[in-house]
Parts: sequence; structure tokens; C-alpha cells
Amino acid sequence: MSKKVLIIYAHPEPSSLTRQLVDVSVECLSARGHEVLQSDLYAMGWKATFDEHDFPERVNLQRLSFGAESAHAYSSGRQTADVAAEQEKVLAADAVIFQFPLWWYGMPAIMKGWIDRVWAAGLAHGYKGAGNAYRYGDGAFKGKRAMLSVAVGGPAEDYSPRGINAPLEQLLFPITHGSLYFPGFDVLPTFAVYGTGGLTAAGAAAAKEAWRTRLKGLFEDAPIPFRPQNGGDYSQTNELKSHVAPGQTGLMAHIIGAEERQTQVMQVEELS
Amino acid sequence: MSKKVLIIYAHPEPSSLTRQLVDVSVECLSARGHEVLQSDLYAMGWKATFDEHDFPERVNLQRLSFGAESAHAYSSGRQTADVAAEQEKVLAADAVIFQFPLWWYGMPAIMKGWIDRVWAAGLAHGYKGAGNAYRYGDGAFKGKRAMLSVAVGGPAEDYSPRGINAPLEQLLFPITHGSLYFPGFDVLPTFAVYGTGGLTAAGAAAAKEAWRTRLKGLFEDAPIPFRPQNGGDYSQTNELKSHVAPGQTGLMAHIIGAEERQTQVMQVEELS
Repeated sequence: MSKKVLIIYAHPEPSSLTRQLVDVSVECLSARGHEVLQSDLYAMGWKATFDEHDFPERVNLQRLSFGAESAHAYSSGRQTADVAAEQEKVLAADAVIFQFPLWWYGMPAIMKGWIDRVWAAGLAHGYKGAGNAYRYGDGAFKGKRAMLSVAVGGPAEDYSPRGINAPLEQLLFPITHGSLYFPGFDVLPTFAVYGTGGLTAAGAAAAKEAWRTRLKGLFEDAPIPFRPQNGGDYSQTNELKSHVAPGQTGLMAHIIGAEERQTQVMQVEELS
Repeated sequence: MSKKVLIIYAHPEPSSLTRQLVDVSVECLSARGHEVLQSDLYAMGWKATFDEHDFPERVNLQRLSFGAESAHAYSSGRQTADVAAEQEKVLAADAVIFQFPLWWYGMPAIMKGWIDRVWAAGLAHGYKGAGNAYRYGDGAFKGKRAMLSVAVGGPAEDYSPRGINAPLEQLLFPITHGSLYFPGFDVLPTFAVYGTGGLTAAGAAAAKEAWRTRLKGLFEDAPIPFRPQNGGDYSQTNELKSHVAPGQTGLMAHIIGAEERQTQVMQVEELS
């Protein structure tokens, strides 16, 4: 069945690996009959900084509260046009794919600023004006899928279970769990290509082939099994109940069965 | 002894908790005889997006490689003036403090863009043109201290060892370990104020008092005991040797004694 897929990407160089993988996404998803929407953040001149210009009609001109102004702008239809357009694309999409180079173990600032600005109060947090009632498995984007596709400069060993950088899955948890599962997406395991600094033509071809394979499973692959807030695993204070992942602390305790896995990241071995 | 401290901060509202805590930093450090440098990112109109304009004289006009252009611009003194000025401030400072509101479990985009742009190739990574030889305890900023001071909207329980958001220390690991320890800083435990959405005047006063206490220890408190890359704990492939943190995987294995601690984050209990 035909679906809509939004691709958000952050690299200005058309020949970069990130952009080659974006081209694969467009080609592959279109060939499967899906409608592809794109947000090419560099080409759009996307405004990265969340600031007073995001609130053309302030509820309080004396004091800038991002939370209060975001809620007001969203609920009253007074957001800037660029933010409203991105929200419409996300709401229209069945799946959203973020494609970016890993910079300092996170998104490039231009993409972090997309999250900061587009994830409005009342939509991505504070949904239905109900505080934290709808989050982590509930929320405005429930039923949609999301996935990260990341080009990583360093070698795969640095991101291995005992590698010095820490596993990519854990470094990206603030995004996969905190920014995507939070407002309701089912988040697929991250696709990563390592060693992009020294990638050969054969390495790039192998990476593209691996990405094609992942794209085929976009609507079928199992998402990361994050624990839903409202599924019974958490107490009233949103802490894991004592019988859930007993004795475990930290981010991996919020993934069902994480103790049995080394990593959810699909690794393309260093290809250079 | 008088030291230089650089405060980098990201909130445009003077009455915000972040800015109140910046005011405490300036007052407290000045009173102790330190010289305070400031980077008020919003007031500076800091350019968040790392792009082709960061490289006024390109080494390759056909293809934009951030790594290659950053290395060339840094080594040949052809960076933009704003980036060079920030690097000079960091190099002059004995300690660097980042003060920001936690947005989607990370820095606001304007501050992420400070890292993306200021942490040049040849300086913050690829130091001395030696690939990854100098990092995680070695590097251009060795001997300097760094600390995060974070205003967190949600309640402390959400960030407790089994809280649904995951512990702040782990969410910020890409910054403390990946962006600060990487280029050589000794990184102090993060200072966090939780529940800032509903903070009372008494709560804000308590937070400021707690921050004053932490500032007194800026040059004496023990840093987070991250394992140095070149200290003997890692193999040639930069993976933990089998006798180090045996059986452990993931980010906490890179902190000495982490299994004995619940968290390194100094928590100001929710004060609202």
C-alpha cells in the first residue's frame, strides 16, 4: 500500500555519503510506490535557533518563556510559516527518516534546531494540554514510524559494546527515545555507516545496498522495544516498577530485553 | 590564585533561571578574584549552522568536506573571525562552563552549533594532525576544566536511576565525554536544577545557593573519572581490555568505579 514518507536531511554537499543515501531513499521509496516528502535543511536555509522570532504574537512581551509562547503559538495558529509547514509534513507522513552525519555524537545544529522549533508545546510535548500524560508510546505521532540514518566518521570498533566512544544506540538514545519515542513514534533501529572518512567506492556501494535493504523493511521491521509509559511498567512517579528489569538502572533498562542484546544498531562493518 | 573562567550560555531571557544562574557565576567567580569571560550566544547572534560560509578560502571548491575544510581553515588561519575569537577564549581559559536549558535531552541548537563550529579539526579533533592519537584525556584542552550547568523542566524522578527519561549523566554523556573529555578537558559532574517549569522563588533561591557551592569547588572538586584513552585501559582498537570493567558494556563502563555509584549528577531535589 502506498504510504507517505518524509525525509529530513542535513548535509549541503550533493556528493556526500549522507546525500547519496538520501538519493537512495528517494529512488527506493518512490519505486515502491510511496510518496516522498523532503526537507533539505541546508537548501531551505532552515533557521536553527529557537528564539523570540518564533513567536510573532507573544502572550507575554515582558518575559520570554519558550514553553508558554510555544503552547500559545501552536494552539492559536500563530506559529511561523516554516514551522507550521514542517509540522504538516510530519502529520501527513506515515514515516519520518532523519539522515545526517554524526557531529560530536549528535545531530548537526541545523537539525537539532528543527527538533527544537518544530516539536511545539501542545504537539510533541504537553499533548492535549495534559502535561506528561501522553508520551513515550503515546502522543501526536502515535502510529507513525521514525528512523535515523547516520554517517559516522570513526571506525565501528570505537562504537562497539566496549568501544571507547560507547555504542551508537546509547549515544543516540536522547534522540531515538527522548525526541522520537517521546511524542509517539515507533522508532526503528538506527542505520549507521562507519568509517565514512576513508570510504572507498566499493564501501559506499555496500553502504547503499545495506540501506536499500533497510528501507524495504521500513513498514515491516520491528521497532526498538522501548517500554511505553502507560503500559504498566512504570510507577506513578514514572520510575520502573521493582519487578521490571530488576536491579537495572540507566537508559538500557527502558528497552525490553536489552540485557539479552549487545546493540540494536544495525552495523555496516567499517568499509574502508 | 586568580584564574580565567569562560561562561558560555544559551538563553535570551534575562529573568530565566539559566540567566539567573549565569549572574551567580559572574558574581561568585569575580568575587573570588577570577577573571570572567562570557559568550552570550543569543546576544552575539551566534551563527548556529556549520556551513560553507565557515570556510572563506576553500581548499576544494568542487566538493564540500567539513573535515578537510575545517582542518585547512584552522591550520592556515583562515577561519571566520567569530570562530577564531571563541577558540582564543577557550585557549585562554582555565575553566569553561556551559549554562543552558535542557531541550530535548541536549543543548539548544545555538549551543550545539557553537560546538560544531568552534571545535575545529586540528584543534578539538585530529589534534596535531595525528588522527585519534590525542583524545579522551589528551588533546588541546588538557589541563583545563569544564562543567555543564543545566536547567531541566521535568521532575528529578524522571531522571532518577530508574526514571523514565534515564539519568541525566547518561543523556549528557555525548557532551561530557564525547565533546569535552574528548578534546582533553577534565569534566566536573553536571550541575542540574530540576522542575524549573514550576520553580518557586524559594526554589530558585535554593538552586542559586547550590550553584554557589558548586562554583566554590570549580578548581578543587574531583572530575568525572572517565578512563583516559592512553592510560592503559584500552586495546589497540580502542576497546576496553578484558580485565577492565569485566563483562560491562556501554557508556558507564568508561567511568572508573561507575558500578559503585548511582549517578555523578549532583541533584538539587525538585524545588517547586
